[in-house]
Amino acid sequence: MSAASYAFDVDTAVEAVADHRFAAAITDRWNVLGGRPNGGYVMGICLQALRRVMLLPDPLVVSAFFLRPALPGPAEVRTAIVRSGRRIATGEATLYQDGKETLRVTAAFSDLRQGAGRTVLLAAPPELPPPDEAIDLMGGRVIPELSIAERVEYRVAQWPGWAQGKPSGRPSQEFWMRHRDGREPDLLSLASLVDAAAPPVLELGETASATIELTVHLRAHPAPGWLACRVATRFVIGGYHEEDFEIWDSTGALVAQSRQLARLP
Amino acid sequence: MSAASYAFDVDTAVEAVADHRFAAAITDRWNVLGGRPNGGYVMGICLQALRRVMLLPDPLVVSAFFLRPALPGPAEVRTAIVRSGRRIATGEATLYQDGKETLRVTAAFSDLRQGAGRTVLLAAPPELPPPDEAIDLMGGRVIPELSIAERVEYRVAQWPGWAQGKPSGRPSQEFWMRHRDGREPDLLSLASLVDAAAPPVLELGETASATIELTVHLRAHPAPGWLACRVATRFVIGGYHEEDFEIWDSTGALVAQSRQLARLP
Repeated sequence: MSAASYAFDVDTAVEAVADHRFAAAITDRWNVLGGRPNGGYVMGICLQALRRVMLLPDPLVVSAFFLRPALPGPAEVRTAIVRSGRRIATGEATLYQDGKETLRVTAAFSDLRQGAGRTVLLAAPPELPPPDEAIDLMGGRVIPELSIAERVEYRVAQWPGWAQGKPSGRPSQEFWMRHRDGREPDLLSLASLVDAAAPPVLELGETASATIELTVHLRAHPAPGWLACRVATRFVIGGYHEEDFEIWDSTGALVAQSRQLARLP
Repeated sequence: MSAASYAFDVDTAVEAVADHRFAAAITDRWNVLGGRPNGGYVMGICLQALRRVMLLPDPLVVSAFFLRPALPGPAEVRTAIVRSGRRIATGEATLYQDGKETLRVTAAFSDLRQGAGRTVLLAAPPELPPPDEAIDLMGGRVIPELSIAERVEYRVAQWPGWAQGKPSGRPSQEFWMRHRDGREPDLLSLASLVDAAAPPVLELGETASATIELTVHLRAHPAPGWLACRVATRFVIGGYHEEDFEIWDSTGALVAQSRQLARLP
């Protein structure tokens, strides 16, 4: 399979139509329950456009405000360079559907391979059984409304409570994740994957969670292979809640961290 | 003391000079080591301008990209309404000094008093001795370069290692915080205060930390009184590190949560 035919790359592709303007198509292949395109996936389209115009290669920190629900169909992305520094360059991408601003992304880019600063790690990766011994969360089932699960594979140590109809009351989860079609992770896909898993509030008996803002920190280029993930919500207040996500690569390196503010429907 | 004379309100005040344009003065009264204005304080100026134009009263989530160092002196803030929804309104504020964009803030506003959703708390406030029995971190000392410590008061259970010249290697801290002049906290000041304390990387022997991006979640209107705070860094990778901050009010309610991406100098 060539790089150009991986689902993530095909479905986030953008085409330059003018200076700082790109045409895109939001597909229905990354839908979450409710039949809406996953927010992280739509943000990936903005990052594809943004990296075409930035002079540094790697997204370092990305903040996305979800203004309106995205829908499968055509979209336009407009980009702007906010500041181009030597070590850090900041840009903005806005996605429009039907002439309405749907998503606003601001991102600082850098060159993570040039980083030569200090490293100190105070936490360890999730402890999970090897992926081959872990439970495939979809178990071969296909849920048409949940097409993202045909693109992304999830493996867990134990069945989550919510998947058995018995929410545990503990809104946290550790699991393996990867692209089903063999696409290896990179910084761009990590930024989308932090939003690709079931929200931990399912363990509180909730059925959905709508992202208001998502911030992703990209910390290192990921090694090929499975990604070990940890997600947790600690504070639901008046329906609003944060969701913290970590992704560790197959060598045990932390590669992405995110936090989103979301609300219960 | 009247509200208009509290240092935070005086020093973040903006004056409308045209449609969506505000004049401000960045003071030297909130400087951190190095003699630079604190980033959270400068962000507060942007939020003062933004709340003048938003149709909903409360900042809910704020993301700020620090593009250039701010300097004491005049500044201009330009605002734009990105989307005005019924429950959430999103706006942008950019701060310019000498014609250069210094800070870009995007924020979603809401009305937190109208929130009627579910509340579930999975973590507890910091365990600290009463403020009167805690150690005043400045102990009456004045460090001219560190003028923010004349505006904000910090009390700790034990002396931090870094303050004794013996960094502990544990980059986390719990402490009390309040405005020194008796100004009670509100959502606006909370958004600045999440950046007002010593960075936990001081416990790794570092002397400073430069914010690249700061995201703040405002979770509830704070009660008057001391604020119990918790700050931690868990991952320093190639010099880049996150810093997580929680603020709990005097009734034990979580009122603000933030995460920033910063780098060692």
